[in-house]
Amino acid sequence: MSILADLLMTLFERRYATDRNGDDRPLPELFHELLTSRGEVSGVQLARKILDRYASLDDAGRREVFEYLLVEMDIDVPAVQSALKAYAAAPGRGTYRQLGRAVEPGRQELARRLNQVPGATGELVRMREDLLRFSRENPMLGVVDLDFRHLFSSWFNRGFLVLRQISWSSPANILEKIIAYESVHAIQSWDDLRSRLQPADRRCFAFFHPVMPDEPLIFVEVALTRGVPDSIQDVLAESREIIEPTQANTAVFYSISNCQSGLAGVSFGNSLIKQVVADLSRELPGLATFVTLSPIPGLVKWLTDNDLVDDIHDSGRLAALAAGYLLHAKSDDGRPLDPVARFHLNNGAIVHRVHARGDLSEKGMSQSGGAMVNYLYDLGRLEDNHESYANLRQVVASREARDLAKSVRTIIEHSEEHAANG
Amino acid sequence: MSILADLLMTLFERRYATDRNGDDRPLPELFHELLTSRGEVSGVQLARKILDRYASLDDAGRREVFEYLLVEMDIDVPAVQSALKAYAAAPGRGTYRQLGRAVEPGRQELARRLNQVPGATGELVRMREDLLRFSRENPMLGVVDLDFRHLFSSWFNRGFLVLRQISWSSPANILEKIIAYESVHAIQSWDDLRSRLQPADRRCFAFFHPVMPDEPLIFVEVALTRGVPDSIQDVLAESREIIEPTQANTAVFYSISNCQSGLAGVSFGNSLIKQVVADLSRELPGLATFVTLSPIPGLVKWLTDNDLVDDIHDSGRLAALAAGYLLHAKSDDGRPLDPVARFHLNNGAIVHRVHARGDLSEKGMSQSGGAMVNYLYDLGRLEDNHESYANLRQVVASREARDLAKSVRTIIEHSEEHAANG
Amino acid sequence: MSILADLLMTLFERRYATDRNGDDRPLPELFHELLTSRGEVSGVQLARKILDRYASLDDAGRREVFEYLLVEMDIDVPAVQSALKAYAAAPGRGTYRQLGRAVEPGRQELARRLNQVPGATGELVRMREDLLRFSRENPMLGVVDLDFRHLFSSWFNRGFLVLRQISWSSPANILEKIIAYESVHAIQSWDDLRSRLQPADRRCFAFFHPVMPDEPLIFVEVALTRGVPDSIQDVLAESREIIEPTQANTAVFYSISNCQSGLAGVSFGNSLIKQVVADLSRELPGLATFVTLSPIPGLVKWLTDNDLVDDIHDSGRLAALAAGYLLHAKSDDGRPLDPVARFHLNNGAIVHRVHARGDLSEKGMSQSGGAMVNYLYDLGRLEDNHESYANLRQVVASREARDLAKSVRTIIEHSEEHAANG
Amino acid sequence: MSILADLLMTLFERRYATDRNGDDRPLPELFHELLTSRGEVSGVQLARKILDRYASLDDAGRREVFEYLLVEMDIDVPAVQSALKAYAAAPGRGTYRQLGRAVEPGRQELARRLNQVPGATGELVRMREDLLRFSRENPMLGVVDLDFRHLFSSWFNRGFLVLRQISWSSPANILEKIIAYESVHAIQSWDDLRSRLQPADRRCFAFFHPVMPDEPLIFVEVALTRGVPDSIQDVLAESREIIEPTQANTAVFYSISNCQSGLAGVSFGNSLIKQVVADLSRELPGLATFVTLSPIPGLVKWLTDNDLVDDIHDSGRLAALAAGYLLHAKSDDGRPLDPVARFHLNNGAIVHRVHARGDLSEKGMSQSGGAMVNYLYDLGRLEDNHESYANLRQVVASREARDLAKSVRTIIEHSEEHAANG
Repeated sequence: MSILADLLMTLFERRYATDRNGDDRPLPELFHELLTSRGEVSGVQLARKILDRYASLDDAGRREVFEYLLVEMDIDVPAVQSALKAYAAAPGRGTYRQLGRAVEPGRQELARRLNQVPGATGELVRMREDLLRFSRENPMLGVVDLDFRHLFSSWFNRGFLVLRQISWSSPANILEKIIAYESVHAIQSWDDLRSRLQPADRRCFAFFHPVMPDEPLIFVEVALTRGVPDSIQDVLAESREIIEPTQANTAVFYSISNCQSGLAGVSFGNSLIKQVVADLSRELPGLATFVTLSPIPGLVKWLTDNDLVDDIHDSGRLAALAAGYLLHAKSDDGRPLDPVARFHLNNGAIVHRVHARGDLSEKGMSQSGGAMVNYLYDLGRLEDNHESYANLRQVVASREARDLAKSVRTIIEHSEEHAANG
Repeated sequence: MSILADLLMTLFERRYATDRNGDDRPLPELFHELLTSRGEVSGVQLARKILDRYASLDDAGRREVFEYLLVEMDIDVPAVQSALKAYAAAPGRGTYRQLGRAVEPGRQELARRLNQVPGATGELVRMREDLLRFSRENPMLGVVDLDFRHLFSSWFNRGFLVLRQISWSSPANILEKIIAYESVHAIQSWDDLRSRLQPADRRCFAFFHPVMPDEPLIFVEVALTRGVPDSIQDVLAESREIIEPTQANTAVFYSISNCQSGLAGVSFGNSLIKQVVADLSRELPGLATFVTLSPIPGLVKWLTDNDLVDDIHDSGRLAALAAGYLLHAKSDDGRPLDPVARFHLNNGAIVHRVHARGDLSEKGMSQSGGAMVNYLYDLGRLEDNHESYANLRQVVASREARDLAKSVRTIIEHSEEHAANG
Repeated sequence: MSILADLLMTLFERRYATDRNGDDRPLPELFHELLTSRGEVSGVQLARKILDRYASLDDAGRREVFEYLLVEMDIDVPAVQSALKAYAAAPGRGTYRQLGRAVEPGRQELARRLNQVPGATGELVRMREDLLRFSRENPMLGVVDLDFRHLFSSWFNRGFLVLRQISWSSPANILEKIIAYESVHAIQSWDDLRSRLQPADRRCFAFFHPVMPDEPLIFVEVALTRGVPDSIQDVLAESREIIEPTQANTAVFYSISNCQSGLAGVSFGNSLIKQVVADLSRELPGLATFVTLSPIPGLVKWLTDNDLVDDIHDSGRLAALAAGYLLHAKSDDGRPLDPVARFHLNNGAIVHRVHARGDLSEKGMSQSGGAMVNYLYDLGRLEDNHESYANLRQVVASREARDLAKSVRTIIEHSEEHAANG
Repeated sequence: MSILADLLMTLFERRYATDRNGDDRPLPELFHELLTSRGEVSGVQLARKILDRYASLDDAGRREVFEYLLVEMDIDVPAVQSALKAYAAAPGRGTYRQLGRAVEPGRQELARRLNQVPGATGELVRMREDLLRFSRENPMLGVVDLDFRHLFSSWFNRGFLVLRQISWSSPANILEKIIAYESVHAIQSWDDLRSRLQPADRRCFAFFHPVMPDEPLIFVEVALTRGVPDSIQDVLAESREIIEPTQANTAVFYSISNCQSGLAGVSFGNSLIKQVVADLSRELPGLATFVTLSPIPGLVKWLTDNDLVDDIHDSGRLAALAAGYLLHAKSDDGRPLDPVARFHLNNGAIVHRVHARGDLSEKGMSQSGGAMVNYLYDLGRLEDNHESYANLRQVVASREARDLAKSVRTIIEHSEEHAANG
């Protein structure tokens, strides 16, 4: 690999030969200084300089940074081999420390040292956004990404996250991010936002990391209702009657959005829902049912693939097909085709009810012909459900959903055979 | 190792066969469940149970836990070898992920999952206190300790720490920890504490981690003075004249204490001092000099070892001997003998002044015959000083200190020869 | 007055004879119970009930409440006379206490006891909004209003107010009030609001009362600029260049809005501006000039009244006329005609510069033909300027403004004579 | 009075003729300037100067200040008379305003203007401490005091106070005030304080005013217990078993202390207890009984006065005598002799139980022979109890207390007759 590395280095050095602060050393040199003993003392200033330099780069320059990290700051395989041998021969603190140093690529320690700077954590998350983008073109960069993800899993450990309620009294700079990041049912305006936060029967919760206090990581919007709602139109209707929270018997999670694409693969959703269920149960003992009202994003595509898309306009039929899709349509690994289903089932929720006319928005119609689904979160059953799903690849569902799905099972099987033969 | 492991396991299971919550499975079984997919869902409860169980163990039981982690949750050397081979043969995301999993012992992921529980971080720090204690008897446990230290270095990264001023308006439950943890000049009472916090010319700063808001990690006590003080008696004198902060030209760091022995080896002191220097400079532009007033804990022992202890009662002579000790007495690795000197020199400070009658307390007299030293922190010179120290093993000192040391150099050399021959 | 009182009472009792809580006693009865010793014990509940009852009344009912307070809870003149006589005869604690009780109408103590309820202060402020409205039709209610105003002057004393910066990180429920209350240059949207709060060279400050933490009392919007701006268009231009606060030499108070009409006559504006000037001076020592950019709301009316309105389209001429108006147009009491001028001159500011094309908005054109004025706040001169204004009725102005005004003086005098003769 | 006034003025001016800031005008002149229109503009600086000048005076000087306020800033009786006549003749806003101005002595507005300064409220409270002290020697100063008290009743209105829990996490500068102000059962040390705040079954609550955030106004210490305790020794015993708050059925208010002698006569105790009862009821639904454990400070004196003090060593007899004293010993106005009894009975509490060996401390023995009493707070009965007490002078008591008291009634009556005849 060294020829490539040399080549990269040359390009790299040439392009970024100067610096506004008069420090015109190339980034790789700064990386290495930060990793030395000297870097321990001058750390914060140096790390700040590296982060600024990175921020000033265009995409080509940033790609080169990651390529440098990939090639030049990888583990040294022979060194690991010999450290491993030494440890196997004489296990002990000394040999284990050597092994630990050998198996961790320099780029991990580099990221930790960059993180000394106040505010750096958010910048590193945004660096990984770039990295994930570049990895799509250059899959080898996925190697570097694993190191970032490893670090982030440690830094964004559940124990470090803070659950905060988002309300109409929250700071505007946070609320504008809620508007921007809502990815399920778009928030049209500040008035729309207010209507989701201010009424007594609405709640919103988000996870934050203490060093990124203005950046929600993930948030969930909740409606407190009487009974399980059939459609998002009912939930969001301006004219709906607002109820007292103590009168509600159901909490509906009608939108869950991840905010930081740079934290992909570091999962918070499961923890967030369970924490919110636990907190709401304590605050409002009248709540007996915790469900989502979720989109079925893959339905229309699957119906089309299976020549069933014409049935979409018949509500009864659509609900049955949607149930069938959720319960029986699987990918090669035996898991459900639908990504939202995979998320909630993996959390231990079950398929509860399917509604044909749940989301009549343009997006809803085009994705699922308007169908939506409630997943039910029963705290006492989550573990067992998850077990069935994770170990037996079983989609746990209510009797109602199973019956609905059954009615179209033969059609589905037929169309799948047809597709398989086609 | 497996016979030992089996043996341990048997003992372990027998001793802790029951549980108050009716879950009488042995701890190792709980560890493994927490690491499974099921553990992802039931994580928080299970982690809580494990932490409670650990807390209920006596020392023998806790030692067995760490021995279990050492033996049964170590890396699998052949698995690492084969993963390494696969990565070398075909570097890529898949092989790198396999390698990453193989090289990280299960106990690291176990600790991360335990850390899901609110408040767990502090409990894990206290677990490491136990571990460090056990490691003194069983050095093999140092292997497990390296994994804890690795995690803690990531979790307690400088970027996550918060600097807070400790004042007489701070919560009493934090102040009582300042009293407990002060390890240089003991705080005798709440009145004594007040006299170090409340006067306008006194400051105290500590680092905290956001998830341990009641637990200072390290703190420094500062006196704002006119001129560099000669002795701790002057600094702490009840009858001293209190000055306006704006009249001070010198900030004296007269006590630095680490609070968490479970964070040994995760260093904060360097960052703390530099941060406080930077903050005080901004707040009080009249401050021109930043020094410590530090003990010389190894002086009397060294004087005794070198047959020089009789000179201790002659102040002039003692100051010279102390300077000589700090500048010239080295351990085999070429670094200064004195541990406090090593800390400040490594931070880039220099030996500034030596005072024979700096600390007349019982402790001060017995450690150093009463001698103290000022280390000078000159922000603009820290990097270069550190460099000289780290790379050239050079003890940077003021001319005054060097001259003092010079006057006793021959005596020191003579006595060292004598000792070497003795 | 007792016949009227009886009549009122009858109407009053009939109309509000029932209560949702089953307590159907008429409001006056509740008032009197609250004022008894029993009311001291049951105070909070009873006060809450009265406030709720008031809130449920329509305008006719509320007017009757104030008429009741006017007639039935007034001072008892003969009782005051006799208490006064007793005090004059034998001044002492006992007679003074009796006098104090006699001279204070029951409605004042009633308001104080209503204020026991958490949140009542804001409700009482809103009650006075009603009262001020009713007073326009029934000037006798101005008597009751004096009691409210007296209380509010005590409760909203400067020493109890808190200055807070309003920023884009402020809670949305406060920001929406800024949008609603801005009365000088309307805020069109949340984006418009953001453009006045978020840029580094913009500030906004408001006074709050601790028991009304979500309700700004008065706020001022500030632009940090280089030089004194000529027009509000320049200040609010979307395309303007944002500068670093440290580069600014001028702070421009371009909008000051009172938020609570129920606090009319309890003045905060003077304190707010002086406090903000003091705070900004401390934070940004580069600021040398503190000016307003203010409307001249009475200009067009005055020009029309004086047959000068045709000159409005000649910019040079308009500036001169505006200066003349501000410096020389007086009401019968000898104070300037222009209400905004009265406010700033009374604060000790001076007329600094006049701009013909300062506000080209529809409102600006219709009020003042587009003219605006800078009032200059020079902290060191405020007292003397105020003195000249308050005692000598002198409008202090810059030479530039005086020269401008001089050029149209004869025209003004002529037109005033003309008007006087007309 | 004018000769006296002149005399005072002369003394006054001579003594305080100079000022550190070069402003050597006598205080009265500064008072008057603060009350002018000029004072509105220069208010904060001038008020600060006056407060500093006052603080620098010795007792003699301060006494003169209040004498000046008494004599020179009193109401003008003839002016009030004429304003009153005008108002009676033509009631309206104008005449009412004139009357309002006439009846309020200048010293009230002076105090309001002094209060503009941040932090002035606390200084004014301390000024009244002086005033109350001086009033003991010169009762005429009670006139000035009534004005202070009138203002403070408005400023420290219940609606402005904030209830805060005092815990071991409270700031040390507040906790040291709890130690200083505890006036019932002295707190011996910080350890003693911790034992009253930190255990799960102990609570402490205080009222604060927002502008005096470091100064508790009044606080109450609460023990959560099973059953009503017999003695303070049990409540404070170091060796007592700490219970879970949820296991408690009784909340015991065992100490209530006013902190600010400058707020004498502005009562908070009633509100504090009721608020704490309401808050604890909500937090801990298991609490069924709310009682005090109160001293009987006047018992021994009364027993002595009635020749009954020899019975003090017989516990059974002492309890009966204590009950008799509380229920039947009255002052001339028909209210109970005991001041603590008056406070709680006026709040609507009842005499619940009497304990002979309730407080064996030196203070307890000397005041009451060791007897203590529980007053019971039954929220639903407070109003009626208060009514009986306030209107009928009836001491409401439990059957147990009444029976105890009955057993000694004849003795009491006999001894009282004896005393009357003696």
